[in-house]
Amino acid sequence: MANSKYEYVREFEQAEPLLKNTWIVVRIDGRGFHRLSTKYQFEKPNDKRALDLMNAAGAAVMNELPDLVLAYGISDEYSFVYHKDTTLFERRAAKLTSTIVSTFTSYYVFLWPQYFPDTPLLLGMMPTFDGRAVCYPTIGNLRDYLSWRQVDCHINNTYNTAFWTLILKGGMEAREAEQTLSGTNTGQKNEIMYTNGLNYNNELEIYKKGTVLYRDYELAHPIEGSSEILSSAVASTGTDTIASSLPEELSKTAQEKEKKSKRKAGVKAEHIDIIKDEFWQRRPWILSGRSGRLVGSVTTG
Amino acid sequence: MANSKYEYVREFEQAEPLLKNTWIVVRIDGRGFHRLSTKYQFEKPNDKRALDLMNAAGAAVMNELPDLVLAYGISDEYSFVYHKDTTLFERRAAKLTSTIVSTFTSYYVFLWPQYFPDTPLLLGMMPTFDGRAVCYPTIGNLRDYLSWRQVDCHINNTYNTAFWTLILKGGMEAREAEQTLSGTNTGQKNEIMYTNGLNYNNELEIYKKGTVLYRDYELAHPIEGSSEILSSAVASTGTDTIASSLPEELSKTAQEKEKKSKRKAGVKAEHIDIIKDEFWQRRPWILSGRSGRLVGSVTTG
Amino acid sequence: MANSKYEYVREFEQAEPLLKNTWIVVRIDGRGFHRLSTKYQFEKPNDKRALDLMNAAGAAVMNELPDLVLAYGISDEYSFVYHKDTTLFERRAAKLTSTIVSTFTSYYVFLWPQYFPDTPLLLGMMPTFDGRAVCYPTIGNLRDYLSWRQVDCHINNTYNTAFWTLILKGGMEAREAEQTLSGTNTGQKNEIMYTNGLNYNNELEIYKKGTVLYRDYELAHPIEGSSEILSSAVASTGTDTIASSLPEELSKTAQEKEKKSKRKAGVKAEHIDIIKDEFWQRRPWILSGRSGRLVGSVTTG
Amino acid sequence: MANSKYEYVREFEQAEPLLKNTWIVVRIDGRGFHRLSTKYQFEKPNDKRALDLMNAAGAAVMNELPDLVLAYGISDEYSFVYHKDTTLFERRAAKLTSTIVSTFTSYYVFLWPQYFPDTPLLLGMMPTFDGRAVCYPTIGNLRDYLSWRQVDCHINNTYNTAFWTLILKGGMEAREAEQTLSGTNTGQKNEIMYTNGLNYNNELEIYKKGTVLYRDYELAHPIEGSSEILSSAVASTGTDTIASSLPEELSKTAQEKEKKSKRKAGVKAEHIDIIKDEFWQRRPWILSGRSGRLVGSVTTG
Repeated sequence: MANSKYEYVREFEQAEPLLKNTWIVVRIDGRGFHRLSTKYQFEKPNDKRALDLMNAAGAAVMNELPDLVLAYGISDEYSFVYHKDTTLFERRAAKLTSTIVSTFTSYYVFLWPQYFPDTPLLLGMMPTFDGRAVCYPTIGNLRDYLSWRQVDCHINNTYNTAFWTLILKGGMEAREAEQTLSGTNTGQKNEIMYTNGLNYNNELEIYKKGTVLYRDYELAHPIEGSSEILSSAVASTGTDTIASSLPEELSKTAQEKEKKSKRKAGVKAEHIDIIKDEFWQRRPWILSGRSGRLVGSVTTG
Repeated sequence: MANSKYEYVREFEQAEPLLKNTWIVVRIDGRGFHRLSTKYQFEKPNDKRALDLMNAAGAAVMNELPDLVLAYGISDEYSFVYHKDTTLFERRAAKLTSTIVSTFTSYYVFLWPQYFPDTPLLLGMMPTFDGRAVCYPTIGNLRDYLSWRQVDCHINNTYNTAFWTLILKGGMEAREAEQTLSGTNTGQKNEIMYTNGLNYNNELEIYKKGTVLYRDYELAHPIEGSSEILSSAVASTGTDTIASSLPEELSKTAQEKEKKSKRKAGVKAEHIDIIKDEFWQRRPWILSGRSGRLVGSVTTG
Repeated sequence: MANSKYEYVREFEQAEPLLKNTWIVVRIDGRGFHRLSTKYQFEKPNDKRALDLMNAAGAAVMNELPDLVLAYGISDEYSFVYHKDTTLFERRAAKLTSTIVSTFTSYYVFLWPQYFPDTPLLLGMMPTFDGRAVCYPTIGNLRDYLSWRQVDCHINNTYNTAFWTLILKGGMEAREAEQTLSGTNTGQKNEIMYTNGLNYNNELEIYKKGTVLYRDYELAHPIEGSSEILSSAVASTGTDTIASSLPEELSKTAQEKEKKSKRKAGVKAEHIDIIKDEFWQRRPWILSGRSGRLVGSVTTG
Repeated sequence: MANSKYEYVREFEQAEPLLKNTWIVVRIDGRGFHRLSTKYQFEKPNDKRALDLMNAAGAAVMNELPDLVLAYGISDEYSFVYHKDTTLFERRAAKLTSTIVSTFTSYYVFLWPQYFPDTPLLLGMMPTFDGRAVCYPTIGNLRDYLSWRQVDCHINNTYNTAFWTLILKGGMEAREAEQTLSGTNTGQKNEIMYTNGLNYNNELEIYKKGTVLYRDYELAHPIEGSSEILSSAVASTGTDTIASSLPEELSKTAQEKEKKSKRKAGVKAEHIDIIKDEFWQRRPWILSGRSGRLVGSVTTG
């Protein structure tokens, strides 16, 4: 029996490949996490268990999708970066986005009991996330996007930590704390916290810097006054120079080898500055999209 | 501290509202469910527990999103229909899709132990779904889409049931069963099954028809030779006639009332024909997007 | 010699078919026509030659593109309507739009000397137009779009005619005229004109109603208290009813016959109300997209 | 009188800004120019008058749109390049495309009598063009696009010139000429032409290389074994390096100055190689999007 009579409806589906040769960032956000964090009594201003669960789910997504080169998470949001050369799902926005959203959600719910052993999920208050994909044409734009998120982490965490210090240690009501902080700059917030018995510098890096996930290869040597590694990193990404940029394609065998190498590498989580050049210079494989040298491996050629 | 330096990256986000006054269908599909169903030993050709779990997750999505008017599920796929007048998330495709995908996944994983008490999920084989949104301009197009899916259910289920009958009851190998069925029509498949001791007519409706979910209001009276209900249904949807179709907007209060009524209504699951007119004629609230009369309620005005 | 080395650049081209089964309106607008109309000394408030030239160019576009069912022009803008079933250029927005824009411009420039024999075009002040395509899912939406343009024509023409009456007959300066009209309604504007010696009712219909272009077939009979023609018009368009709307396709031969019939029909220009039902009821071929009966033709079966 | 009742139809218009920080190429193509060139008896294989007219129209477009940095034309097609930083028309595809298409058409028709004084245009055979916009994320992609067009020019012109030599000088029929050329490479085609009395090297550069249009500033010094100019060109475009690429914005005054300088510069047409680096290295203002030094101007600081 043919199904041709109704099949014309497929023609309503519209192609939506994202522009070639651009970095694709899928950011997911917790839906209604303000209410959810109250319901499940997350600690304030940061709940270490909740962040660890976010990072576990994020790492699982990285493991399942080798075309992702990096992920960065703060609070209840996570940004995943597909390499500009990815051809996964023919670069269709809906597939690239929904696969990440679903995989993240799946692990988040499944791993919940491990991070919140005493707080079972309730049917009326299930954790869910939405997501969207955005293209960035250059490495500069991509790094600025990630810098934007890390600066946001800093701003929000400073405020929230000060706010909850005033409440928990200073005994203030919410409104009073709000008024106290209104119009203050970072230095003043630090002072307010200090006065109330909290040294912001001693806060955990995961709170202050967020979490960056990437494949774990051997770091490149630190740079001494040279920009060699920087340039070679750029060169290896084959991106924008005045010269022609014919796309360099890997053979099928080489592609398979790449995939294996990436799965072998494991995903590393760090809480460090990703705004400055150093992070990128020492991890050239992130932007090149090619495997680095596995940690502890012996060079044989 | 301002975050303005990097904030320009927001301008790379592109608006993507779906065309107004069109029916939005979000279809989700299980990713790699062939492997997954083998791993978790789903029964063949249909696993009732797996379908019941799909339907439970589907109903949860309907409960959380009152703008959905109907959902239809077969096998590892589910189609959700937003009413053409929805303004949810400003009709942004990514939000409309990812919210459904995430909510569905969340419940599917959470409810799994209830439907598969003896088959715990394993970290390397988590269930995930992808999704996409498609617009259909008319009720006719929308119904044809759903008819397409229900015909597909019928075609696939007839084949699969015959295939597994040949293997489980006929003792064939997969290849032999395949060859036996090759080129047969529905009638011949029914006969093959009958000869091997299975009467297809006695198969469960959930296998043969799939599952339709909708809000549970009192059915409209059956029609006797009149198309009155049909026309009034169309009229009430305010869709295509030669006349002007100024959008009729509800007041805020009326909108709130609508939402409440929809939540009250509960979600009904049925395994029936949705291709013929009758299904739609007796449930005019589906296409009108307005609440019907609650079942068992007493009319007081 | 192969050109394969650089040919990968074609993959950057993105598909952009407009949603099937929707009415496509391409509106073009004169660029900088305020300055242009001053430079070429267009008469105020309306220059009959300029409107006639717009209409001649519009009719030429209709002649060259049989998939257009109607066009409506006011001032320096023109809206062209592709039938919802058109498959021209695979419904690609850029092609559908640029072809109209270019054809219109081509004729406008070529025919200029015919309408402005004493005012040659000057190189630094060439007439140009921009354009865009918009989809409307239902006939109701389409008609509301056209009503919007015709109401705009009425509003603008009433204001402009009153404004120039105050200046040309009332001897006012621009600012004074502006202030006089500020906050007045239509009735008051009519009175102001009347007082200054101009009866707005006697103005040309082309100024008050704009120009509608359509293929010239025999009008359907006027309707007496029946909505039959209306319903059959809707039915023939095959649009939205509760019933399935499988697309009805014409055979190749029938398609060719349709095209010929449309070219034969000629394009009629009228300055009449297109907001009320009557215009559409008496010209059912516009919305059906099928040829009507040629004017003066003898029925032979 | 308000027009609010129908104004809702504006909400059907969909935003369509092209991705920021990408090079936008609008290519236009003559519609039905095969028939048109026969009708107006264009000379074969190349009609110098027709190419000169294309170039005149192309230059006019460059003059009217200062955001264009380069254009390249062959046969009946022309590619226009908007700088990646342009914000013209909010980067809306329809506006960017239709404005070019209309302006080009307008000048083409108006200037026709100047280039074809003895061949008046005929109403049934008006020249028209269609167009589309494509984004290229990097300079490398952009240059590859242009290289693709120039290689196409070379391939097509070699074939056409050989074909018409066989017909005009060799006395062959079309089919015979076609068969003779079938499967030949460039060298063999050159030999065939030579044998028939035509030295391809002596053909006009405009036929062999096409025409590139750009603003006429003083060339940068030729490069001797250094890539300095190259790097500074890239640097000045602010595009892809590993470093952050915050967009550098000009003040309003500086923007106005830029515009004036561009209009002053005039548009230069050349028939030269644009595939190799040299073209770009000596004209750094094309990719930087900033004005160069006016030819013959005296430096005063």
